Amino acid sequence: MHLKADILGIDSGGKPIVFLNRFDADDIGIRASGRITLNFKKKLLTAIVNTTTSVNRGHIGINDEVKRMLDIKQNSVVDVEITAFPKSLQFIHNRLTGRRLLYHEIYEIVKDVVQGNLNENEISAFVTALSIQGLDLDEATSLALSMVETGKQLDLGKKTIVDKHSIGGVPGDKTTLLVVPIVAAMGLTIPKVSSRAITSAGGTADRAETLMPVDLEISEMKRVIKKSNGCMVWGGSLDLAPADDIFVRSEYSLYIDPLLLPSIMSKKKAVNATHLVIDIPTGRGSKMQTVSESDFLAKELIELGRRLGIRTHCVLTNGEKPIGFTMGPSLEAREALSILMNKIAVPDLADKVCHIAGSIFEMVGKKSGYQLAKEILHSGKAEKKMREIIGLQGGNSKVKIEDLAIGGEKYMVRAKKPGQILWMDNIALIELARAAGAPKDKGAGIVFNKKTGDKVRIGDVLYTIYAEKPRKLSRTVELLSEAEPFGIGDNIEMLIHKIKESSFVKRSFMIDR
Amino acid sequence: MHLKADILGIDSGGKPIVFLNRFDADDIGIRASGRITLNFKKKLLTAIVNTTTSVNRGHIGINDEVKRMLDIKQNSVVDVEITAFPKSLQFIHNRLTGRRLLYHEIYEIVKDVVQGNLNENEISAFVTALSIQGLDLDEATSLALSMVETGKQLDLGKKTIVDKHSIGGVPGDKTTLLVVPIVAAMGLTIPKVSSRAITSAGGTADRAETLMPVDLEISEMKRVIKKSNGCMVWGGSLDLAPADDIFVRSEYSLYIDPLLLPSIMSKKKAVNATHLVIDIPTGRGSKMQTVSESDFLAKELIELGRRLGIRTHCVLTNGEKPIGFTMGPSLEAREALSILMNKIAVPDLADKVCHIAGSIFEMVGKKSGYQLAKEILHSGKAEKKMREIIGLQGGNSKVKIEDLAIGGEKYMVRAKKPGQILWMDNIALIELARAAGAPKDKGAGIVFNKKTGDKVRIGDVLYTIYAEKPRKLSRTVELLSEAEPFGIGDNIEMLIHKIKESSFVKRSFMIDR
Repeated sequence: MHLKADILGIDSGGKPIVFLNRFDADDIGIRASGRITLNFKKKLLTAIVNTTTSVNRGHIGINDEVKRMLDIKQNSVVDVEITAFPKSLQFIHNRLTGRRLLYHEIYEIVKDVVQGNLNENEISAFVTALSIQGLDLDEATSLALSMVETGKQLDLGKKTIVDKHSIGGVPGDKTTLLVVPIVAAMGLTIPKVSSRAITSAGGTADRAETLMPVDLEISEMKRVIKKSNGCMVWGGSLDLAPADDIFVRSEYSLYIDPLLLPSIMSKKKAVNATHLVIDIPTGRGSKMQTVSESDFLAKELIELGRRLGIRTHCVLTNGEKPIGFTMGPSLEAREALSILMNKIAVPDLADKVCHIAGSIFEMVGKKSGYQLAKEILHSGKAEKKMREIIGLQGGNSKVKIEDLAIGGEKYMVRAKKPGQILWMDNIALIELARAAGAPKDKGAGIVFNKKTGDKVRIGDVLYTIYAEKPRKLSRTVELLSEAEPFGIGDNIEMLIHKIKESSFVKRSFMIDR
Repeated sequence: MHLKADILGIDSGGKPIVFLNRFDADDIGIRASGRITLNFKKKLLTAIVNTTTSVNRGHIGINDEVKRMLDIKQNSVVDVEITAFPKSLQFIHNRLTGRRLLYHEIYEIVKDVVQGNLNENEISAFVTALSIQGLDLDEATSLALSMVETGKQLDLGKKTIVDKHSIGGVPGDKTTLLVVPIVAAMGLTIPKVSSRAITSAGGTADRAETLMPVDLEISEMKRVIKKSNGCMVWGGSLDLAPADDIFVRSEYSLYIDPLLLPSIMSKKKAVNATHLVIDIPTGRGSKMQTVSESDFLAKELIELGRRLGIRTHCVLTNGEKPIGFTMGPSLEAREALSILMNKIAVPDLADKVCHIAGSIFEMVGKKSGYQLAKEILHSGKAEKKMREIIGLQGGNSKVKIEDLAIGGEKYMVRAKKPGQILWMDNIALIELARAAGAPKDKGAGIVFNKKTGDKVRIGDVLYTIYAEKPRKLSRTVELLSEAEPFGIGDNIEMLIHKIKESSFVKRSFMIDR
């Protein structure tokens, strides 16, 4: 059928989408969410159909993606045909019936996800099936490889490329801001690609962005690494394993995360990492709640790494409380910079950083990795390297701590009873920091005046909330009446909590990787 | 956040959808496919978000649904807040982890499906989970009841209301066009609501529409039934169990059908049926391929009926070949009308019709139902009743067979070898009829000159394809080179088919109910 193009001026985040008059759709024999093939000047494109009454008969409404991909102008005549169901749909159906998929079947699905040939509905069914039935390591390997092959790759031409990753879930985790300069100062190549927060109060890219631009292109990233051995960039627009970003959209609101393994490892394979240390924060209130599930995850990550040619070690770390004394992008960047400058001591953070950097050192053959990392941190070499990277990425290499602006609104939360701090609730703290504006408002967040184990008296300041906007601070303070982010009591108190009539349990979900 | 409305003129088939500038979306903290609550002059509405760069910052693009529901004008100021995740999402998540859902949890999901509070992605996850894990009869009952309660209901104020249903899958099945007038002629109330084809070459509503308008409102439907005891209307715009139509969109392209039971029974409960006969066509090439799976389905339908207060009987019928000698809306309506007028004999169709009408008669206490149905059919009473219904629904009650227009393009397919017709391939025949234009082109379809069991010589006409448009006929004839809709051979031939290297098996899927 020949239809005249109506340019609607809608941008759909990369997906080619068209709008057909309901009667034309009937004539073509297509339903909403179906697929049609557009043929314009011998260029072919598959697009997902919306039906509408607001596009006239004989016309086809096109979004900006279609306009750009086919170079169509208003009223250009486009030939439109119904598209046969993509083969990948058959494979998804087979997976729904419990059949394990082969590499070429998974590749076909991932390719169609990236090219926009599968609609939300179909992608969700695939992700749901993986979540319900689990995926074995063969499938995880196929997924990781397919995700690498359908995106760009970083080729640095180096024999040894190291990387670190945290599966996330613990607040205030500015470890990467310290590990990268330590490792790079040692002369190892570490092309660190990070994400922004999805459900947390800050991702590494959000923190790093307070110090330097992180939205680099692959060529710029290469230039920075060539000079300094390291970088800290945001992965969002690099097109490394882009399928993952689409899968995450399905997982997010369903509170499921079946693609954790291939998601992590595909991003590492896409930068051609050869040695990798993965941090698995573990414990009550973090993503992995028990040591046994973390051990199991670690074994799977190591085996998947082996299959992909990435030597992988995992470190299980204490994830029951925030790392260091700050949460929120600028506050955390201040804390990291202060340690690099040897102005303050943050023992838990420094311990974690030296374990991770030290593990990397030992993987590539160095002895006493932990000690080595500690020395580089204390010697000022890490600070120097960090300032070099900041400068190369376009930031101010002479940045001072007070240059990092903190929100002007603050509220101190005080102890209402005396005792010891028995626990800190990560999820409640993330909710407070997000309500205060983090990670969007870089200066918003929380400073901890006390942490688990400390003794407090009535009226002692437990933590201080910072916000950029008064409205957000007052909203956060309102939340305090319901939240209990600190548990204070006598060390012998046994009750965790009570469950009353209602069986509805409030839960939070962390998908940040 | 306050935003100015941009009216985009997009109709999204009932779903409230908004378009936000990407930066505003970031500020609100919302992602594409997320939910926001619009507040305009104290009216609240939840809408699904698309992010875009084509709507200016400070503005919000709204579709026609939002415009209509909130009565918003261009540049009206709307207050926009992020919506908490609906409770139903937690229930869907629980179902994904294998937990069975309670009535109030299922009701919450179905209500949010109908109100547009769940996006495609989330609905698909729910349907996929039901497909993978199966649903038990408690859940099927909860689903059926919730689907009824979230839609309209037909209240005829009668003590006995009968109905029939076919689970579908066999082509040329014009049974309903004959059962309704026979049953109504007997004085029983039969408010028949039918669907159009989704994957087949014609649904009952498509066939009936060649004789009379079927797009009635509930009040008109009541008027027709009050006068004639019966009707034949399309269910699409009656809003009876509307959730089902939304679920079907998810099921369709995934080739899954987990909601078959509640879908069928909710529609019957919504018309307050008290006695129901369900036809389950069974055999190679139909939806239910074996007698044992049909038996199992029948038992579940009967038990679900019992729980909903609908006495239910099932009849398993031969589904291995098309019913009667025609496929396609007008051709089938001609065939049905000819039988009612006693002009032709179609033994298989008449047998099926009398079994179903007869079963209904016996359920309400009449003796020798089959014989009774046969007498009403042969006496002319059924024809008289049919013409009365046609007239009441706004059709021509004096309609003649030749008034039903058949496509002017035709092509006769002849036997290439002699022998007996061993089988007919329902799915191949449906594909041919759809290629020829059915059900959209009412005059398109197939007439069978021979059927299974008949002996043929070389050159005998096996079947004739009709189309309204030459282009569609030639496309259909092209398909013939690949299709083998008739198997001709000696009765002793044992081979079904061969499978060679490729493991990819072409399959068709029937979702019409």
